[in-house]
Amino acid sequence: MSKIDKVVLAYSGGLDTSVIVRWLQDTYNCEVVTFTADIGQGEEVEPARAKAEALGVKEIYIDDLREEFVRDFVFPMFRANTIYEGEYLLGTSIARPLIAKRLIEIANETGADAISHGATGKGNDQVRFELGAYALKPGIQVIAPWREWDLTSREKLMQYCEQHKIPVDFSNKKKKSPYSMDANLLHISYEGGVLEEPWAEAEEDMWRWSVSPESAPDQPTYITLQFEKGDPVAIDGERLSPATLLEKLNKLGGANGIGRLDIVENRYVGMKSRGCYETPGGTILMKAHRAIESITLDREVAHLKDELMPRYAKLIYNGYWWSPERRMLQVAIDESQSVVNGEVRLKLYKGSVSAVGRRSADSLFDERIATFEDDAGAYNQKDAEGFIKLNALRLRIAAGKGRDLI
Amino acid sequence: MSKIDKVVLAYSGGLDTSVIVRWLQDTYNCEVVTFTADIGQGEEVEPARAKAEALGVKEIYIDDLREEFVRDFVFPMFRANTIYEGEYLLGTSIARPLIAKRLIEIANETGADAISHGATGKGNDQVRFELGAYALKPGIQVIAPWREWDLTSREKLMQYCEQHKIPVDFSNKKKKSPYSMDANLLHISYEGGVLEEPWAEAEEDMWRWSVSPESAPDQPTYITLQFEKGDPVAIDGERLSPATLLEKLNKLGGANGIGRLDIVENRYVGMKSRGCYETPGGTILMKAHRAIESITLDREVAHLKDELMPRYAKLIYNGYWWSPERRMLQVAIDESQSVVNGEVRLKLYKGSVSAVGRRSADSLFDERIATFEDDAGAYNQKDAEGFIKLNALRLRIAAGKGRDLI
Amino acid sequence: MSKIDKVVLAYSGGLDTSVIVRWLQDTYNCEVVTFTADIGQGEEVEPARAKAEALGVKEIYIDDLREEFVRDFVFPMFRANTIYEGEYLLGTSIARPLIAKRLIEIANETGADAISHGATGKGNDQVRFELGAYALKPGIQVIAPWREWDLTSREKLMQYCEQHKIPVDFSNKKKKSPYSMDANLLHISYEGGVLEEPWAEAEEDMWRWSVSPESAPDQPTYITLQFEKGDPVAIDGERLSPATLLEKLNKLGGANGIGRLDIVENRYVGMKSRGCYETPGGTILMKAHRAIESITLDREVAHLKDELMPRYAKLIYNGYWWSPERRMLQVAIDESQSVVNGEVRLKLYKGSVSAVGRRSADSLFDERIATFEDDAGAYNQKDAEGFIKLNALRLRIAAGKGRDLI
Amino acid sequence: MSKIDKVVLAYSGGLDTSVIVRWLQDTYNCEVVTFTADIGQGEEVEPARAKAEALGVKEIYIDDLREEFVRDFVFPMFRANTIYEGEYLLGTSIARPLIAKRLIEIANETGADAISHGATGKGNDQVRFELGAYALKPGIQVIAPWREWDLTSREKLMQYCEQHKIPVDFSNKKKKSPYSMDANLLHISYEGGVLEEPWAEAEEDMWRWSVSPESAPDQPTYITLQFEKGDPVAIDGERLSPATLLEKLNKLGGANGIGRLDIVENRYVGMKSRGCYETPGGTILMKAHRAIESITLDREVAHLKDELMPRYAKLIYNGYWWSPERRMLQVAIDESQSVVNGEVRLKLYKGSVSAVGRRSADSLFDERIATFEDDAGAYNQKDAEGFIKLNALRLRIAAGKGRDLI
Repeated sequence: MSKIDKVVLAYSGGLDTSVIVRWLQDTYNCEVVTFTADIGQGEEVEPARAKAEALGVKEIYIDDLREEFVRDFVFPMFRANTIYEGEYLLGTSIARPLIAKRLIEIANETGADAISHGATGKGNDQVRFELGAYALKPGIQVIAPWREWDLTSREKLMQYCEQHKIPVDFSNKKKKSPYSMDANLLHISYEGGVLEEPWAEAEEDMWRWSVSPESAPDQPTYITLQFEKGDPVAIDGERLSPATLLEKLNKLGGANGIGRLDIVENRYVGMKSRGCYETPGGTILMKAHRAIESITLDREVAHLKDELMPRYAKLIYNGYWWSPERRMLQVAIDESQSVVNGEVRLKLYKGSVSAVGRRSADSLFDERIATFEDDAGAYNQKDAEGFIKLNALRLRIAAGKGRDLI
Repeated sequence: MSKIDKVVLAYSGGLDTSVIVRWLQDTYNCEVVTFTADIGQGEEVEPARAKAEALGVKEIYIDDLREEFVRDFVFPMFRANTIYEGEYLLGTSIARPLIAKRLIEIANETGADAISHGATGKGNDQVRFELGAYALKPGIQVIAPWREWDLTSREKLMQYCEQHKIPVDFSNKKKKSPYSMDANLLHISYEGGVLEEPWAEAEEDMWRWSVSPESAPDQPTYITLQFEKGDPVAIDGERLSPATLLEKLNKLGGANGIGRLDIVENRYVGMKSRGCYETPGGTILMKAHRAIESITLDREVAHLKDELMPRYAKLIYNGYWWSPERRMLQVAIDESQSVVNGEVRLKLYKGSVSAVGRRSADSLFDERIATFEDDAGAYNQKDAEGFIKLNALRLRIAAGKGRDLI
Repeated sequence: MSKIDKVVLAYSGGLDTSVIVRWLQDTYNCEVVTFTADIGQGEEVEPARAKAEALGVKEIYIDDLREEFVRDFVFPMFRANTIYEGEYLLGTSIARPLIAKRLIEIANETGADAISHGATGKGNDQVRFELGAYALKPGIQVIAPWREWDLTSREKLMQYCEQHKIPVDFSNKKKKSPYSMDANLLHISYEGGVLEEPWAEAEEDMWRWSVSPESAPDQPTYITLQFEKGDPVAIDGERLSPATLLEKLNKLGGANGIGRLDIVENRYVGMKSRGCYETPGGTILMKAHRAIESITLDREVAHLKDELMPRYAKLIYNGYWWSPERRMLQVAIDESQSVVNGEVRLKLYKGSVSAVGRRSADSLFDERIATFEDDAGAYNQKDAEGFIKLNALRLRIAAGKGRDLI
Repeated sequence: MSKIDKVVLAYSGGLDTSVIVRWLQDTYNCEVVTFTADIGQGEEVEPARAKAEALGVKEIYIDDLREEFVRDFVFPMFRANTIYEGEYLLGTSIARPLIAKRLIEIANETGADAISHGATGKGNDQVRFELGAYALKPGIQVIAPWREWDLTSREKLMQYCEQHKIPVDFSNKKKKSPYSMDANLLHISYEGGVLEEPWAEAEEDMWRWSVSPESAPDQPTYITLQFEKGDPVAIDGERLSPATLLEKLNKLGGANGIGRLDIVENRYVGMKSRGCYETPGGTILMKAHRAIESITLDREVAHLKDELMPRYAKLIYNGYWWSPERRMLQVAIDESQSVVNGEVRLKLYKGSVSAVGRRSADSLFDERIATFEDDAGAYNQKDAEGFIKLNALRLRIAAGKGRDLI
């Protein structure tokens, strides 16, 4: 264990990371810098200041990163229609590289030689934090208390608080949620508790951001989402900043029961885990982005994006946002988005979001050619014969030589 | 134009293909064999016999292909979680290779030297029919009347009927749907009419297989779907044949407003087109199949499938079912499915389908390792440090040499 | 056939395209503009002027495109280590988009409404010319005489010349090569003649650019190739322009018997064809580029490039250089090359080229970590255990549940 | 450290693994089972018996695995034209899964609870051995002495021998090669020593299996290689077993200076390393296999294989031979090979191998269609127009709407 003088901790102000502050101070005899970010998790971040001060922390960072989060992380990711394992919109994954970046920036500013976080040794988040940190500052040291200490249960944590006089007046002291949760502007996630049995249905009162489809309004809500270069910029004609726009989509989606997901996913560290997610705005955005791309993207570009997407999603899920391969994919994705401009009309209703209209000055939809009516010669149907004949040629040659395909 | 003695026509019994029968007889001075298949389009096929006879057809094939369709085409495709351009479940595409195969079988049986079909020169179906035909019988000739004749409007078709005494007592003679439709056990599709304007919302009365989510029951429906080797075999414990099972899923889905889709897609022949689809059973099946795979498939196998899927979907969409590359992908997909056994519990509600539980004797979900509780040493959290350190090594070396990732 | 007033012809000055000039004038009663380019084919282009004038051509373009060809087409392609079907360096394919672009530029300058070329209806080149032309000027008309006329043999062409008083004093009038050849600064190709039998070995006197390995010097030649941003810029310390550099590599390679290739390839139009190629400089460049990348590229970037390459090669082979999907891939490839700087030392000897040394200020090779000797703690071998354990976890879980892999 | 009673060691009989025997006995107080395999490394394996006996080993396994190695590992890999990072034929990588499998089989037979190997903590081989072992027997324990002990130099190893009375009468006691080498029937590899400087050329006397191209015969050697289902079965008409055939190809290649390679590669554990390889037979086999595929494989199958290959190569390099994803790819590759039958004629000369002829009863090369001569209507050149027109349609629509591609 090398000597550590100062460590920057990703600090939520909650029980676990408050224990970590003291544990770091005691175990490493070092100074702790706390960093608390508002990325839209829906809790006040300012109270973390007093808690940190009470723990003797002298350098306290509290940042509102909501706009940066949506503009530089969420939106670039959605340009690729990114979905992990066919279902998951990567709400947790995409927040981690921003935290990692900020931890390193603060380490640089404060002269810290280490960073620390409250992620466990079984999950993906430790990987995402640490890969990011190492990629941005290779000499940084990382302290992951959950991999080191023996405070392996809530009881032991509480006991540690008592022994070390850590003031545990957290409001959720007693009625702790049975789920492990994570939230930011893109989503809220639930793990643990009854979800550890994949056959058990999640309880209705677990969900926090969306009404159940049953409780959603009986009338559909229609909205129009406007895109510029692949990013949403306005709802129903009103231009909004990235964070404000996503927040509004979350409200619209949540009110209509949209964006719930219940899956078993494959973690990078090798095990399967059950997770439930609410991503109301992201679910709407995904649908809308595909719709605006459907009329503005070239076919082969769209197909190339679809083939690259699973790999891009995996990079983000596994924690490689800050990597040259992610950047290489990103420039390709971004290149494709210059023409992704226009409007999508969406219907939100009881858990579903449908694209019901799309239009764009950059549309490649050509009504003269697409029509079932007389197209006045815009398309020569006879061309199709040659097209088919030559596409079939290799198959005909093979069949002619006796190759059997049935 | 080479001499043609006998041609097998994919005959629906409708106006268009009835005109084609006579046009083929007149234009090629050849015998026409009609082939009408029940693939679950929801119309009686037997009436086609009398119509064909009235047109002087002597060899008439009427086949019930529903079980073969679902067992040998739909289910193998769903093993890959196949979606074209992120949305389309390929309901039309997957029926074409079966028709092509049967046309060639009948050509072989009847000694015909050509096949014919009623697909236009602008669409994908001509390609799918003809690629299949050429791949299975390289010397076959293909007559595509819509690419040859000048009957380019409904009026001209009607006029042709009168001139040639074709009995047009079709019930839909007057109240023709404004949409071009196609149906089989997997889906019904709509194109044309107001849909040719991508900004216009489809009219509610267009949809035929599903109630609107608004009209769906206020209580959710729960079902359990059982899988064996990646294929569904039972609903709520009742074993059903492939076609029967899919039909029941269609009813369940349709009653709950599930499976509507409105997209602009890229055709193989080069233009974009608007299509609306109802795929109630397929939408449920897709969700369920992913869910049963989520606990039974190895992670890397699942990711490999996800990366191959867009290419596989494109093959089917473009008409290459009968090709060696499709077969090569299919054996890989099928190999992955031997362990995809078990049950998925699904909630159907007002347009949405959710997987709420999944279990399997082949589950790879390991509750001892996945748990947030004490795992009694099943997983050593310290391993994560080395895992992260070595995965970060290339990034650290690069950063140490001054490579900048921000 | 729409009315054509003026057509720009890719004119080599040879027999075939001279006949095409007259045939276009006669058949379309139109003015012909000739365009002859020096792309390093090794023949004088200026004589084409007199020949065109003799045929009554008034607008004659003769361009030296060698630098543009290498700088904007060959080098970008080599950044991707592009090889078609594991063997072919795409020497013909990469020249076509430049010709197509120039044809369209000249059509715009001269107000021509059509372009024409001398490629046959069986080959890839017609596709490459025409896809490029359509992509750059969608309303252009294309005349492909070989697909239209009945001059299907050399005899008929000669007869046509006599009938139309085309002066056939071409030096190669009698001793026509038995091969169909194409050459530019990147390669020379041979097709036809005895090569149409894939079992027959090419005759030694067919090869024109390289000595046989048997005849190459008995002493190896060593050179050092310097790269900047993925492109070669100097040989043995001497900075050279792109075309000059490639020309010099061709001489060095040719003198050492390097770059011969004899393959059967799959054409885009559906058939297999035998081709022999000499690409001396390209073969050296490929080896050197991989070598400089081997020390400067991140591993995952290198692997991503390798996985994308076959698709990129196929795009170029099939004629889609001027396409949005090629551009999307190109920006990704180019992004990766900013660090591909440094020097490669190569040994050329009797048909082989080996990289024997590589060095770079951007090298990621870390001797401290890579060493078999004591590394003074630069790498902690114990990390490997956790790395392996977690990478094995999914396999262990599966095996523990009875999955059998043998 | 859990209690270990018996460990199976991959034992070469050399200094390092002899020290490991004693070190295991002393450190773990356990019984050691030695396993020595002949996989064509070119050294007698029987002497390992006496050495093991002298170290007190009671259970000694000495196996000739040459045929199994080539038949079940090398040949399946070559069916995919497998190359890592564009250059490396995976000679070391492909031997490891066989060793891992045999270690586990012997552990099962002898009731051992652990395996051990002599690979270092920096290399790929530890990963390959251990991933294989864990995949085949999830409860196995692995002891990797090089990651545990402090015998980090040759001097310390020798000292350990003296202290523990290990008889070091190995013939290479004094004149140890400066390189770290590994050999089997597919290749011999060199690392370390002067190679740790990537700019330094390997010394001529390092190479052991091949003469330098300079010293190779002045006359080319021609051979004909016969394939069945993608595997070579005969040389010049003489049927040979897999191992015998590869051995003969090695001799032929080595005598003609074929198969030397000098690269910097990316290890799975995160660093770059310099390696030199001699793979004479494999280099010939690769060229020949591509050549026989070139006339027998469908184009799209060939391209699919090319796109999957880098991923397949990476799996093998990284040690995932015994994985479900490798198996999934293998069945696809194997499916493609049923038609890969026929003969390839090769020219071996001074470091180069060229395919000069190929023929097959399963050839898809169609001379009637491919010919430059009159094809009597086998191919209709007019089809090309429609083929090009429809392939260009999306590009024309885009250009017509102002999309600019230059």
